[in-house]
Formats: sequence, C-alpha cells, structure tokens
Amino acid sequence: MFKTSVAIAALSAGGGAALTAAIYSLRPKDRIADMASSSSSLSSTAIVSSPTAVTAIPANQVFGGPGGPPLPVPGTAPVNPGGLFEYGFPGPVSDIATRAALISSYDRRTRNPHWVVEHITPESLATRGGDRKNSLFLEDDGVPAKFRALLKDYFRSGYDRGHQVPAADAKWSQTAMDETFYLSNMCPQVGEGFNRDYWAHFEDFCRRLTQRYPSVRIVTGPLYLPKKDPVDNKWYVKYEMIGTPPSVAVPTHFYKVIFAEDGRVGGNVAVGAFVLPNARIDNAKPITDFEVPLEAVERASGLEFANLLPMQRRKRLCADTTCALVIKDYNDRQKTFAKSAK
Amino acid sequence: MFKTSVAIAALSAGGGAALTAAIYSLRPKDRIADMASSSSSLSSTAIVSSPTAVTAIPANQVFGGPGGPPLPVPGTAPVNPGGLFEYGFPGPVSDIATRAALISSYDRRTRNPHWVVEHITPESLATRGGDRKNSLFLEDDGVPAKFRALLKDYFRSGYDRGHQVPAADAKWSQTAMDETFYLSNMCPQVGEGFNRDYWAHFEDFCRRLTQRYPSVRIVTGPLYLPKKDPVDNKWYVKYEMIGTPPSVAVPTHFYKVIFAEDGRVGGNVAVGAFVLPNARIDNAKPITDFEVPLEAVERASGLEFANLLPMQRRKRLCADTTCALVIKDYNDRQKTFAKSAK
Repeated sequence: MFKTSVAIAALSAGGGAALTAAIYSLRPKDRIADMASSSSSLSSTAIVSSPTAVTAIPANQVFGGPGGPPLPVPGTAPVNPGGLFEYGFPGPVSDIATRAALISSYDRRTRNPHWVVEHITPESLATRGGDRKNSLFLEDDGVPAKFRALLKDYFRSGYDRGHQVPAADAKWSQTAMDETFYLSNMCPQVGEGFNRDYWAHFEDFCRRLTQRYPSVRIVTGPLYLPKKDPVDNKWYVKYEMIGTPPSVAVPTHFYKVIFAEDGRVGGNVAVGAFVLPNARIDNAKPITDFEVPLEAVERASGLEFANLLPMQRRKRLCADTTCALVIKDYNDRQKTFAKSAK
Repeated sequence: MFKTSVAIAALSAGGGAALTAAIYSLRPKDRIADMASSSSSLSSTAIVSSPTAVTAIPANQVFGGPGGPPLPVPGTAPVNPGGLFEYGFPGPVSDIATRAALISSYDRRTRNPHWVVEHITPESLATRGGDRKNSLFLEDDGVPAKFRALLKDYFRSGYDRGHQVPAADAKWSQTAMDETFYLSNMCPQVGEGFNRDYWAHFEDFCRRLTQRYPSVRIVTGPLYLPKKDPVDNKWYVKYEMIGTPPSVAVPTHFYKVIFAEDGRVGGNVAVGAFVLPNARIDNAKPITDFEVPLEAVERASGLEFANLLPMQRRKRLCADTTCALVIKDYNDRQKTFAKSAK
C-alpha cells in the first residue's frame, strides 16, 4: 500500500500556497532553426522540441548538410552541437492526439499520457449517443510502435486499463466514446477499491459539478511520487512496469485539475487540484483529503496548468462549492450508466 | 548495487537489432492552432507542445476567449477540449538551452536533462582556452524556479554533480567550459568508482575517438530502468530523489550515443550506443559489455536519435574501431587535465 499522506506531505512542502504563488511565465521562444545556426548564443530558451522546424535549418549552416561546407564555424565556436539534428531531433515528442471529446499528450518513456484534457457541460452530459458496450480498447497507432502501449502489456498485469478521460463523459456520441478507449487515454490503475470504486466516485463528482457550473474543464494524468524509506530516511520513487519486456509504468498516483467556469466570457473559474494514490481507498475518506495546492501537482508533474489565468478570476473550487463524493455501488453505477446510455 | 546485466537484458529483449530495425519517421505535424479550432479531428498527430502557437488561436474560436462567443461548437461536437489552453498550455516544455559547446533538453519532472548533445573535433580538443578551476556550478535560471535543479538539492546528497557533457570537452574557451557547469548539464552521479573513475575513462575514450574520426557527436543522458524483483518476479523502476523537498531524480543508468563521422559530406557515420549503471564499475570491465542496440536506448528513454540517418551511411562503432578504455588514475588525470588546460 502507498503511504499517501507521506508522499502528499512532501509534495505540499514543496508546493506552498499554489493559488497565491507567483506563476512563472514562459520565456521568449526561439525557433530551433535559430538555435542550430547560432550555437554560440548564450541564452537558454524554454522552447519546445520541434522536429518540423529542423527541416527549416538551411543546409549550408549544418555540418555535413548536403551541399553545405564540411566544417562551418558558426561565430567563433570551433564546434556545432546543433549539427546532430541533421540525424533527427531526439525529442521528446508528445504525440498529441486530438479527439472529439479529449486532447491527450503522451509520454513515450512511461507509455502513459502526460495529461488528457476534456470539457463537459450539462448539455454534453445530457446528450445520449454512445454506449460503452460498443467500444473496444484500442492501441494508438498514432504513437510509433516502439513507444506504443499495447493491449498485451496490460493483459494479466493485474491492473485495469484506467480511462483518464472517462468513457461516461463522452456519451454524447459513439465516436467520441470510442475514442476514449485509445490506450493513450489509459494508465494502469488498481481496479477494486480504486478505478471501479473511489476513482469512479470522483469522476462522478466531476460530472455533478455541471449541476452548478455550465462548463467544466478537467485535466487528468499520472504521477510518480517519492516516498520516504523508514530504514535509510531517503526518498525513493518506485513503480512497477508491466508488459514483456516491461514497458508501461504503473503510476503511484493520479491527479485531476478541475476548472469550473461560470459561463461568462472572462468570468470566474473555480480551480481544484487533487492527487489520489493508485491504491484502494476507503469510500469513507472525504475527497477533500486529497485536495492539494495546484503548484504541488505542477512541481510533481513538471507541467503547468493555469499560467494565463489571472489570479482575480480564480476561486478555490472546494470553497466555492461542496466537494463531496456520492458513493454508489460499482455494479449499480454500471447498470445506471448502461441504461442511461441507451 | 544495481544488477546491470539484468536491466540491460530486459532492454535488449525489447530492443532487437537497432541498426537494422525499421525507423519510424515522424507523422505529419499539425499546429496546435489547428488542433484547438478543430477538436473533432480524429487524427492523432505527433506534434510537439508549442506554447507560442497557442496565442495564434483566434480568440473567437476559443470558449470564453475575449470577445468570442460564450459556447462555440466546433463541428458537431458539443464540447471544446482545446479551450483549456486559454489558461495556458500544460507542456511538457523542454527548456532547450543553446550553449557554445552543447545543447541541452531539460526534463522538468526529474529535474535532469533528457539529453545533452555536443560536438568535438581534433581541433576543438587541441584548442586551449578554459580551465575548470575558473568554473563554478550554476543553477540554470532559464528553467522556471519551481522546476529548477538547485545547488542545495545536491548538497550533502552523497552524489556528484555529474557533467553530461564533460568540462574537458569544452576547454577551447573559458565561456564554453563555464557553460558546461549549469545544473541543466548535470545529473546526480555516484562519485567514486563511477563519475570519477569508469565514467571518466569512458569520456576519455570518446575524446580519443577524434584520433581516428575528424568529427564526433555525442548525446548523453539519464535513464530510469526497471529491474526484476526476485521475490515477486515483477519489474520495478526505483530511484532516489535528492533535495528537500525531494526534487532531483538519481538516474539508475546513463546512456551515450556516439556518432563518429568520417568528415565527408554525406559520408559514413560510426554509431555506438552505450548504457552504464550509475554505480561503481570495475575498471577491468570492458566498455563493450555496455554496448547496446541503439533502439534499446530509444525504447528506454522515449527518444529517437538517428531517424534521418540512412542505414547505408551507418557503421557499428565498435566494429569500425576498437572500443576499449584507457584506465588512468583519477588524480593523475585531473593533474594532466589541469596542466594541459593552462
């Protein structure tokens, strides 16, 4: 069992008060073309890997480029590290997938998503068009084979193929629902006591937010959090890898960042961040036990979620509304869902 | 101690023969602007996160955008998941830094680089301009504070601040050498028996390749590899996190991918891939014990290194030249280096 409280305490220690924390804006971006052709630049830039841009490097500025000089010397430097990109840009590439009901970003190293974003409204949830009985789990051939999570990785692993954006949030169309079944929207999740229980109740809580908010956006993804070893007092991240060879990481935790919008242009947004362990959780445990500062999720995931959302538009979700789960039996819930989806 | 052979065996099992393997080319790229404005597209695209492009989304196509309609419906979808990017694009952002002697890509989650690329030549190594006695370890303020590796994270951690691109490869200028001391070019490395010994001999081997090849490119970075638990027969990734709060991951292994060029435009490239455990290694162990198929590094790192390098231009480094270390005592080596750098 994971010692949730310990890991979260560590997170929070580093997190501080997220909603009042200074948000670091992104630095000015350079194009990789600039970078490769001016390797003597000293500035570090928060640009993002861009394989497309590589092809824009003029051939005569790349060492060994076709038709180019054999040993160009950019500036005064005797070397040209950017010439390596002639052989291909290493990445990382996030394999962003745009579906009807979600957008996902994929981590080729853990073979799980970095994040999956969705949008639900009272109208979208009221629309009936899809039934999960018609959906099949799908390998995502948009991800290169060597980095792709496979059905056989999950087979007999002991873990559920856990939707990050739930199928039930996309029942407004069969296509939209089918697309939630790509493995790029999945992580290995503990089934009993978590994916089929507490986590499902948490997903239901997110849907019920549309009773109060006309538009709800949710970002969901995995975390790999350290815990303290009581023997040597050091912090270790430890997670299982499933598949043969071992390929897909089993996250220690999952986050959801919820943006509940008041529906007005430039209106208020109630923000809530939650981190739950990938483990059986007692239904009696209040969901507020898993509320964390947004910055704690950011520090742990390496991602940022609200850089462009001004502080004066933000509210704290669990202060603006009641954060509490409604516990339904899994089988009953499935029946209800199957019925309502017809 | 790490059971290297076990982890590498697992890698290799998934790797196959890298140099003859099919290389997956990148898929056609869409811009994120297209993505956000056409969320009903079903195609998954290997585009790369691009925060700049977010600002290119027309405001009237984003839910809640200033001056835009409150609830636009792109296509037939009742929802617009891409509207989340109005609050900022989550990333991941790789904080690519362009220095005189290297280019680095940073992993905000592990607070280590993804990769650092360098280029050395007989001329660059013969040029004397820098002395490491003048260099100081530097936090990289190009990385937002909440994701930045800090000097205090390493302090008393028991690990060396291990250069990925070695200082000795950038002695052609003091500035170039100083820039190798950014923590974005570092990972926590075991000092005695590894960073100060076997790994240093391996770096020396890379430099000596310039005696045979007029141009050598090297990509270096960390890995986090699983090993099999003999008790439950499952595979686990386990690594320490140093710092308070725990912030910087201690890699289990390091890779180097070496491209030794013959100096002709479009000429042959001798490619070698190596994976070493972050642990004391006996100097008697041949470096060829750590040679792996390139695809093994790719599968483990989630990166790709030679997609654009045609197979007919490739040779296997350790077939094209002798792969063997020259073992020098660390103190002698430091003295030699200090002397030669003057």
